[in-house]
Amino acid sequence: MAGQWVAGVDLGGTTTKFAFITMDGEIVEKWEIPTDNRDEGKNITLNIADSISGKLKGHGKDKEQLAGIGIGAPGPIDYENGIILNTVNLGWQDYFPLQASLQELTALPVLIENDANCAALGEMWMGAGNGAADLVCVTLGTGVGGGIIANGNIVRGIYGAAGEIGHITVIPFGGAPCNCGKTGCLETVASATGIVRLAMEALREPGAAGELAEQYRVKGSITAKDVFDCALSGDLVSKKVADMAALHLGLALANIANTLNPEKIVFGGGVSKSGDFLISLVKTHFDRFAFTSVRNSTKLTLASLENHAGVIGAAWLIKNKLENN
Amino acid sequence: MAGQWVAGVDLGGTTTKFAFITMDGEIVEKWEIPTDNRDEGKNITLNIADSISGKLKGHGKDKEQLAGIGIGAPGPIDYENGIILNTVNLGWQDYFPLQASLQELTALPVLIENDANCAALGEMWMGAGNGAADLVCVTLGTGVGGGIIANGNIVRGIYGAAGEIGHITVIPFGGAPCNCGKTGCLETVASATGIVRLAMEALREPGAAGELAEQYRVKGSITAKDVFDCALSGDLVSKKVADMAALHLGLALANIANTLNPEKIVFGGGVSKSGDFLISLVKTHFDRFAFTSVRNSTKLTLASLENHAGVIGAAWLIKNKLENN
Repeated sequence: MAGQWVAGVDLGGTTTKFAFITMDGEIVEKWEIPTDNRDEGKNITLNIADSISGKLKGHGKDKEQLAGIGIGAPGPIDYENGIILNTVNLGWQDYFPLQASLQELTALPVLIENDANCAALGEMWMGAGNGAADLVCVTLGTGVGGGIIANGNIVRGIYGAAGEIGHITVIPFGGAPCNCGKTGCLETVASATGIVRLAMEALREPGAAGELAEQYRVKGSITAKDVFDCALSGDLVSKKVADMAALHLGLALANIANTLNPEKIVFGGGVSKSGDFLISLVKTHFDRFAFTSVRNSTKLTLASLENHAGVIGAAWLIKNKLENN
Repeated sequence: MAGQWVAGVDLGGTTTKFAFITMDGEIVEKWEIPTDNRDEGKNITLNIADSISGKLKGHGKDKEQLAGIGIGAPGPIDYENGIILNTVNLGWQDYFPLQASLQELTALPVLIENDANCAALGEMWMGAGNGAADLVCVTLGTGVGGGIIANGNIVRGIYGAAGEIGHITVIPFGGAPCNCGKTGCLETVASATGIVRLAMEALREPGAAGELAEQYRVKGSITAKDVFDCALSGDLVSKKVADMAALHLGLALANIANTLNPEKIVFGGGVSKSGDFLISLVKTHFDRFAFTSVRNSTKLTLASLENHAGVIGAAWLIKNKLENN
């Protein structure tokens, strides 16, 4: 085990990210390849195996250098059997046996985990979590995702559906429809898509004016980043929209914290690039909704690993397994 | 270890409950004594030690029969040092060193835990949880308490404040004041106190009539049990109040389940004696607010250990420590 590496893999619909990582969590090398999801994704695991084997050769090493492969994949997972239950973006049919397929191709131990959970584990191990045993990660992107770590390990839940933070109901009555079939989910007001929707509603109000309205007039569209940028420079419509998103994030996260009292809540994903500004907005509302001792002990902070969190968390799976066997 | 017992203790403001429990979770004997909280509670640990020692003698055993003492206590705990941070009902001054005091008096290993957490552990081990590794217990009494079990162990959080389910904000704007200093907490609408408050509001509305109104006219007061009993027999005011409590319980618990996807959510405490009726009301709302795969996999159920859950969970602390050392 000493001196060995782990291959961490973050399998996405467009790109597959890789890293060789030491048992101390240091990245030896990282790289990425396009994900070939043609022909029902039949080349995906072949390409992963070839890419790892090629990179090992480049280091003058063979597969004994690796303690195993950890892989984060989008979608719900049958952990007992190492199967991806269903995937929208990878081309695979439902119930793809990812673990068995990759083990067969590489003759190495393989562990799989949901990609949002991998990102949370990465932040716990080497990122903003800094070893915290109780951690909540919230990913603000096209949707809102999450990863929950309690007692030093990921919480998967009985059906692997833990961490669905984006589908916490924050507007119980009269909320907007969500892709999940419910209404009023956090995702409908705090994802990039949700923030743009709120902004478009605000811009449609009679008399809406200012920097965001001007940008929309010129470009014909706006992004969540535009909303935060304009809010930072004082645009009133944007401030109102950003505060609406922050209110619902603050409410949902305070209620999670009232339940779990994590050491840290870590913000990642595209929307979180508005960084400290977003956190300060969310914190105002979080403080109002959090129980006193939770408010005083749970910290809000930005993710620090950016897009390496997934490969590092995937590698942690193998390291953790070795340490506990 | 084989054949040894554990003493489980559930320390309350009025009564201290005890049980000798086998390593398989079977109760050998259970008993209780009044809690003597006079003189800043100086007799409390003495009485616990004497009571255990006396009962052992009654069985013709000495202290070697016990693997240790697990004790559940009200209030927040400094787990590292075995200290009760503050207590309202026991007479102790802040920072009482419960673990050290009881270890000194008994010369046995002692572990302490928050009492709501003990009840959750008891239900996990021998009750409705039936060994579930992911479990949420909600206690509906004068207040609303909770215990969260993830990956087979209690979640305490960074400051021991995890499980404050009663202080989840369910009415973000215009909610009633809570004892905790916030407004709109679950406890303000779903505890026995909260349900009576909602009922009194409903009875004050012009034209309020029916069975509950009649009971109030005759007795001069009503209880949460009256509300559920009258709702069951069709009283409209009571049905409205019960449904209001169930709505907010369903919302809060669905959002917890969206985060943790526990195998079971277990209802305990006085209000839960309305049993299946309460669960069916809550489930209607839970189903509306839960993410599809959570709705299909997380079950709502009644606690099964009643008031033994605390002593059994307290005993589990010692059993678990022995197994993991």
